[in-house]
Amino acid sequence: MTGVPRKRGRPARAEAAEGPGSRERIVAAARAEFASRGYDKASIRAIARGAGVDPALVHHYFGPKERLFAAAVEASLAPALSASATLPEGAPEDLAEELTRFFLGIWENPVTREPLLAVVRSAVTDETAAAVFRDLVSARLMLRIAAHLDTPDPPLRAELAAAHLVGVVLLRHVIKVEPLASADPADLIALVAPAIHHHLTAPADGGRPAT
Amino acid sequence: MTGVPRKRGRPARAEAAEGPGSRERIVAAARAEFASRGYDKASIRAIARGAGVDPALVHHYFGPKERLFAAAVEASLAPALSASATLPEGAPEDLAEELTRFFLGIWENPVTREPLLAVVRSAVTDETAAAVFRDLVSARLMLRIAAHLDTPDPPLRAELAAAHLVGVVLLRHVIKVEPLASADPADLIALVAPAIHHHLTAPADGGRPAT
Repeated sequence: MTGVPRKRGRPARAEAAEGPGSRERIVAAARAEFASRGYDKASIRAIARGAGVDPALVHHYFGPKERLFAAAVEASLAPALSASATLPEGAPEDLAEELTRFFLGIWENPVTREPLLAVVRSAVTDETAAAVFRDLVSARLMLRIAAHLDTPDPPLRAELAAAHLVGVVLLRHVIKVEPLASADPADLIALVAPAIHHHLTAPADGGRPAT
Repeated sequence: MTGVPRKRGRPARAEAAEGPGSRERIVAAARAEFASRGYDKASIRAIARGAGVDPALVHHYFGPKERLFAAAVEASLAPALSASATLPEGAPEDLAEELTRFFLGIWENPVTREPLLAVVRSAVTDETAAAVFRDLVSARLMLRIAAHLDTPDPPLRAELAAAHLVGVVLLRHVIKVEPLASADPADLIALVAPAIHHHLTAPADGGRPAT
């Protein structure tokens, strides 16, 4: 959460009075508020109340609402971002399977799923939230995966792989369509990883898997 | 829109007074209302006003709100449903490419995209809308595609193919992540169809495309 410039004239007295950790408490409260009410309806006042701070301190740390949303999204994506920093350097098969296992895995665990679900719901229904999500995911995740690829147009390939994984979690965990919703995770990984592999490796004409 | 049983004690006088075509006008007004306000906030009263009928007539034709939503979704899916009735009987390659071309195609045209987008937004944010969408899509689309497949667990395969296509339109048309959002449709079809083909044909262990 570094990198947000402090503003001049910050309310130093209020900050001192709220005690240490207020920034982290604000982000935690923002995640809860965005998760339960969505981007559009989330209230800065409620977030401040949840964090036990003055609303002015929320604005001091984060500025406008979309900056606070970005911080909340970044916190929700933290496991994905840290894992993507340790992508395997090996064969493309390993990269595809690793990505598939990791991405589907963080959606299997309710603790990591719920905040992501909240982010996706906001991004699907609100243009501003979509823009924040898009920029963050592009800069922090897609470009990092693309750097591993040896295909034409690596960013497009990374996005097509991500599109497949996003679609699977959407139908499995949000729409909950059967039998996908109850399928064994290992079976899913075995079926999805080759399609991800296709996107990470196929030549410019799309190629075609052996029949 | 057949198959909705008429209730006893229907307001025959009101129906006669509203004139012919009132049912169609209600569905059109419902599509507009669900599209602009989402499932949760959509109002039966506003739909009746939009259709120029009495709210009692809306309830008479459709019963509870989720039934009206189902009718609106079915109308929005009509092009997809009618096209899936004419899926090619040929080689699996043709089926994968045909499905990919068709599905991505209806999202390229704003006239067919907007109502689908509205349905997806409602389904992602509301549990009741998700259930309606799920049942309709399962019964009318997934099972029809699955009937063409010669793999283990055809419904799962049809859903994985659908998941990929849904993920692509989500990142392209809703989140609008670049370069996917601006990619040439023909290039996208060439890249995505082989992954769809994989799901429609791969053996039980998932197989692995030739590298």
